[in-house]
Amino acid sequence: MFMRIDHIGIACNDLEEKIALFSGLFELTVVAREVNEEQGVKEAMLHIADGEGGGSYIQLLEPLDADSPVGKFLARRGEGVHHVAFGVPDVAGAMEQIGAKGVRLLDKHPRHGSMGSSIAFLHPKDVGGMLTELVQAARP
Amino acid sequence: MFMRIDHIGIACNDLEEKIALFSGLFELTVVAREVNEEQGVKEAMLHIADGEGGGSYIQLLEPLDADSPVGKFLARRGEGVHHVAFGVPDVAGAMEQIGAKGVRLLDKHPRHGSMGSSIAFLHPKDVGGMLTELVQAARP
Repeated sequence: MFMRIDHIGIACNDLEEKIALFSGLFELTVVAREVNEEQGVKEAMLHIADGEGGGSYIQLLEPLDADSPVGKFLARRGEGVHHVAFGVPDVAGAMEQIGAKGVRLLDKHPRHGSMGSSIAFLHPKDVGGMLTELVQAARP
Repeated sequence: MFMRIDHIGIACNDLEEKIALFSGLFELTVVAREVNEEQGVKEAMLHIADGEGGGSYIQLLEPLDADSPVGKFLARRGEGVHHVAFGVPDVAGAMEQIGAKGVRLLDKHPRHGSMGSSIAFLHPKDVGGMLTELVQAARP
């Protein structure tokens, strides 16, 4: 079901500062910047590797406002890993298969993720405390 | 410098329970089980993909006792993502390069990681709040 670790989503207070930090420390290149109003974040994807069905990235997330999910996470936990995303060939199929095993889906239908992907989140309490995202990358 | 996301380390209270959960939900196979006395954990590696220089895994970590780093993490934060590890070609070289940029290294020299790898940890406060591990996989 999982083809790759798609990305590590890291919540931060200042996107530009953290882009400079991560790209400088680890020689990573920013391949996309986006504002996702629906999720209340502005974000950047730093490319690590290519894999089956898509790439692997560090995703840096700055909340658009304090009431957004990432804003609340920062207030509660501070900067750090917010979620982990895994690449799947078919996000709708994966949601159905995982949902049938009793995991609560935070999305009823796939929604828009970074770089044209289709994504869905799983409830962290049903996945060992890890906020888990399924990612079907956009077709090249 | 980074060739792949090597693994996501997840702290848990009951290793066997979480192996059953993750392998059942996501069709992942356990490829290694180890006790690491030095780090105070027993652990399992669930294989996701192969990449440059090594594989990508979910690593499940149960503390050997409450006073170990993972035991303290669980008491403070509960189950969930404990650290993220990235594959590098040469862990000693990467430590030197990253340390020269002002990041505090939690290990002075590479030490033994999962499946014969050489590893080192970076201070989370210097890496955006993410406990970060560098992994040089064992030669095949």
